[in-house]
Amino acid sequence: MPPNDSLPYEVKRAQEINRLFGPKDSENAYDLAIDLHNTTSNMGNCLIMKTSKDDFTIQMINYIKNTLTHDNCQVLLLENPAVQYGAIRTVAKHSVGLEIGPQPQGVVRANILANMRKLVNSALDFTHFYNEGKEFPPCTLDVYRAFEKVDYPRDSEGQIIAIIHPQLQDNDWKQLKPGDPSFLTLDGKTIPYNGSSAVYPVFVNEAAYYEKESAFLLTQKVTLKANSMKVCKT
Amino acid sequence: MPPNDSLPYEVKRAQEINRLFGPKDSENAYDLAIDLHNTTSNMGNCLIMKTSKDDFTIQMINYIKNTLTHDNCQVLLLENPAVQYGAIRTVAKHSVGLEIGPQPQGVVRANILANMRKLVNSALDFTHFYNEGKEFPPCTLDVYRAFEKVDYPRDSEGQIIAIIHPQLQDNDWKQLKPGDPSFLTLDGKTIPYNGSSAVYPVFVNEAAYYEKESAFLLTQKVTLKANSMKVCKT
Repeated sequence: MPPNDSLPYEVKRAQEINRLFGPKDSENAYDLAIDLHNTTSNMGNCLIMKTSKDDFTIQMINYIKNTLTHDNCQVLLLENPAVQYGAIRTVAKHSVGLEIGPQPQGVVRANILANMRKLVNSALDFTHFYNEGKEFPPCTLDVYRAFEKVDYPRDSEGQIIAIIHPQLQDNDWKQLKPGDPSFLTLDGKTIPYNGSSAVYPVFVNEAAYYEKESAFLLTQKVTLKANSMKVCKT
Repeated sequence: MPPNDSLPYEVKRAQEINRLFGPKDSENAYDLAIDLHNTTSNMGNCLIMKTSKDDFTIQMINYIKNTLTHDNCQVLLLENPAVQYGAIRTVAKHSVGLEIGPQPQGVVRANILANMRKLVNSALDFTHFYNEGKEFPPCTLDVYRAFEKVDYPRDSEGQIIAIIHPQLQDNDWKQLKPGDPSFLTLDGKTIPYNGSSAVYPVFVNEAAYYEKESAFLLTQKVTLKANSMKVCKT
């Protein structure tokens, strides 16, 4: 689409980013995007991948996780179309999203900033070693595969009528079983999780996702595999 | 000032509120305003008063504190002009601000909402008993009197160059002594608190106060006294 001054600012910026670092899905696209995010959810350190089929991404995330020996770090796979959303990083051929929380908007917390720096440094180290020709042996990677978003309970006019239950709040990555409390109505009734099997919620009570109709995402644990990998120098 | 369509929305709203519940400092002003706020700071339950000289407010806050037997609740006195800011509640003859945190903007946390309801209910109970003619005996009230705001360290162009130190973050109401860490520069240097005596910081890292040039407020502990009080029925 040609640039057009009547377009919203966000659309113009998206076009500009696609022009600078893409075009998406083209040979000219950048090799790697590291996409830095914060969340109001209690996600801790989280690495986001968009595909289970890219050895480079699996190897990179496996490397980052293993270098963070003193910090917990989870991996979220956003491959299912039901939970995908437009992200800058998808313009590049390979990508990783760094999602760290909890941190409110408009606030810098020293602990979150320190964790972000550790993750970025580790991602850059991996890239450096890869470019230098280091061989990475086959590996497996435990990830949380998101498969569904759960909206807040709403009335017939779309108004939210229940909030995240205190027993679910801040419990990202923890098991939620059928019957466990998920929401609390504004008049104090507990709404249990009514799924058919245990899940692991993430992005619980993220501020930016009220408008996306997502109170939390449901995930399941899966293990990914990657072959050994070494840069092909030409 | 007469209403004027060219004024900013916030100014028009302030005029409307003053017309509805004031006019401020007039005989027609409402008797009591209960003003509900949240903060990104780790303030817990906090009651804010604007004057140390109003027995009604001291008695009400003393009542609220005593009914919250299972919850911690601190009192902040914003009487010093150096730390005052425009607040809706100042339109009424008496007022109390309820300030609860931590909660990010755009998020409802069940625990924060439950605490807000407890505080509002207790304030309304007190008002009800007072209006019914109950006598409240003399009391004392321990409060934190704010006397100074501390801005973020900035460069010559006004850009922030340091963030709240991790040892100060989330430690609202805790003693800060001269020499204790207060900020961390973006290149990792600790900036100690350089005051002349121990203080108790509040509103540490509140999102809305970056633009107000306030990284935290300094307070000292003082004890207020109120006479016995009983409504004068006419």
